[in-house]
Amino acid sequence: MRSQRAELVADTAIDLLADRGMRGLTHRAVDEAAGLPPGSTSNLARTRSALLELTLDRLTELEIAEYDSFLTLTGAGLEEGAETLADLAAKALWIQLTAGRRRTIARYELALEATRRPELRTAYDKVGALFREPGVAILTAAGSSDPLRHSRQIVAFTEGLVFDAVVGAGAEPTPDDLRRGLAELLRGMLIRPDPRP
Amino acid sequence: MRSQRAELVADTAIDLLADRGMRGLTHRAVDEAAGLPPGSTSNLARTRSALLELTLDRLTELEIAEYDSFLTLTGAGLEEGAETLADLAAKALWIQLTAGRRRTIARYELALEATRRPELRTAYDKVGALFREPGVAILTAAGSSDPLRHSRQIVAFTEGLVFDAVVGAGAEPTPDDLRRGLAELLRGMLIRPDPRP
Repeated sequence: MRSQRAELVADTAIDLLADRGMRGLTHRAVDEAAGLPPGSTSNLARTRSALLELTLDRLTELEIAEYDSFLTLTGAGLEEGAETLADLAAKALWIQLTAGRRRTIARYELALEATRRPELRTAYDKVGALFREPGVAILTAAGSSDPLRHSRQIVAFTEGLVFDAVVGAGAEPTPDDLRRGLAELLRGMLIRPDPRP
Repeated sequence: MRSQRAELVADTAIDLLADRGMRGLTHRAVDEAAGLPPGSTSNLARTRSALLELTLDRLTELEIAEYDSFLTLTGAGLEEGAETLADLAAKALWIQLTAGRRRTIARYELALEATRRPELRTAYDKVGALFREPGVAILTAAGSSDPLRHSRQIVAFTEGLVFDAVVGAGAEPTPDDLRRGLAELLRGMLIRPDPRP
């Protein structure tokens, strides 16, 4: 059970990561930005590693809350096929580019840092699995011939669209761009190359 | 014209970014890691901003050298259609996951930093255009109905595959995974939903 103060510290750390990057995230900067007495963040998370893990935990919690509602929608949309699926996924992506933009940047900062910190890697990969596993079930139901690989591909594609729009050089896609792109990827994965016997 | 020393400084900065992140890249750390007398990096790039721009310039140079040979290959492969295109693109991606792995991580560090530094954003976006423009020509030749959007999608997809494999939670794709994934995306973009009139 996390205290209200721990939540404030973690939310502040997410904002600092987004606005100032890894160099801007320090225990002291969190205290200041959160308006807490000096030492408060250190009391909650003694080491830098502990602070990063607390931040990733909170980010995961926030992203799962968002993703959960998407998965419920997807279940309902499945019967109507790939176009509906693309529509719903595009809506979830749109949030990552707009309201969830700072969370998105903070997540990329943590992902990069995880290449250097095994303890963060383990935590990050656990979250990854949460996001990947339902995809396999959805794609199996949608008739994919290779649901594990296809699920990975969809995650990679959406990750790339978001990365490109938020931190890369890509033009900001419109919701319609997202929907059409996802529909095309799904179509390419789900159809048979030659439907005639 | 860049001096040999500037090249050494930039190459060292790329490695530091990959191995230690933005926090680990300082003028002093570059001097030490490159075996240069203290102050050498400051002499070449006075400010942090100048050091980051020098590093991005060098990274761009190295990535364009790699991408150029891919583009030549792609031109030759075009007549043979989407499968060949996917094959060649997969080979280029494979390099980013293996021999070019540190460069890939350094590029992501700079992309994230560019969200906070307008001068780096401008430089980064200029590189992005270099990588995007030939894609539009290739996709037009391949019969795309929407080459600009499709080119962006391919860049985003490949970026996502690489990001996911190098810093995300994704399993490492095999060269064959890359080839099949790209072929599926191209198929979904290039076929007409209903080929019968």
